[in-house]
Amino acid sequence: MSEQHPIARLIEAADKAINAEDFDTVVDLYTEDAVLVIKPGTHAVGKPAIRRAMEAIAAHFAGSLDVRQAGMTILETGDTALVLARTIVAAGNAPTVERKATYVFSKDRHGRWLCAIDNSYGHEVLDVGA
Amino acid sequence: MSEQHPIARLIEAADKAINAEDFDTVVDLYTEDAVLVIKPGTHAVGKPAIRRAMEAIAAHFAGSLDVRQAGMTILETGDTALVLARTIVAAGNAPTVERKATYVFSKDRHGRWLCAIDNSYGHEVLDVGA
Repeated sequence: MSEQHPIARLIEAADKAINAEDFDTVVDLYTEDAVLVIKPGTHAVGKPAIRRAMEAIAAHFAGSLDVRQAGMTILETGDTALVLARTIVAAGNAPTVERKATYVFSKDRHGRWLCAIDNSYGHEVLDVGA
Repeated sequence: MSEQHPIARLIEAADKAINAEDFDTVVDLYTEDAVLVIKPGTHAVGKPAIRRAMEAIAAHFAGSLDVRQAGMTILETGDTALVLARTIVAAGNAPTVERKATYVFSKDRHGRWLCAIDNSYGHEVLDVGA
C-alpha cells in the first residue's frame, strides 16, 4: 500500500504516545466510553479509567514499555472498523510477547476515527470466565 | 450466566438459520452495508452479496453445513460490541475446523443489534496481503 489507512496512522501514533508515556495523546484517541481490556477479565471503561490503567501499566514496566504492531488488517464499513493486528509488547523487565490484538474503531460526527474497544489480548479473553 | 446476552441469542439464531439454509433470517441479522469475510482476502459487502455468498457456501457443503459457537466473550460499549468466539464449522463433506471468530455488532436507532462485520477467520486474515 502506498498510502496508510487513517486508522493505521492512529494506531502508530497511539503506540508512540504509549511508549513516550504521553497519556494526553493516548486518551485523546479513545471514545468517551471506550473499553480497554487491561488483562482478560479486567476492563477499564471511559477516558479517566483508561488513563489510570495506562499509567499503572507504564509504572509496572518501569518506563521501558515498547509496543508496536507487526502487521494489521482493517475491515471497515460505514462508521465502524475492526482491526486485527499482531502486537509486539516488549519491555526491559519482561519477556517480549506477541499478541493477536483486536480493536474496534468508530467514526464520530466529525468523521474522526476513535478507538471504542481495545482488546490487545484477542481470544485470550475467552480463557477467563465471562 | 443465568440470562443470555441479546447478541449471543442473535448469533445462536444466525447459526440455526445458516444450518437450515433459511437465508431470509440470516440476512436480516446484518446491517445494510455489513462486511462478511468469505475467506481471508475475499469479502461480501451488503445484504444481497452476503445472501449470495451464504447460498454458495451452503451449496459448496452440499447442505450439510453445521456451524456452532463453542464459547464467546462479548465486549460492549454504547452502540458497539466486539464478539470473540470459538466457532466450530462441521460438514458432511469436509473436516471439522475450529475458528477464532471476530464479529462486530452495531445497535441501530431502534436499539436492535445487527452484525456489521463478520470475520469468522479472526487473525487468519493477516496471512493474505492486505
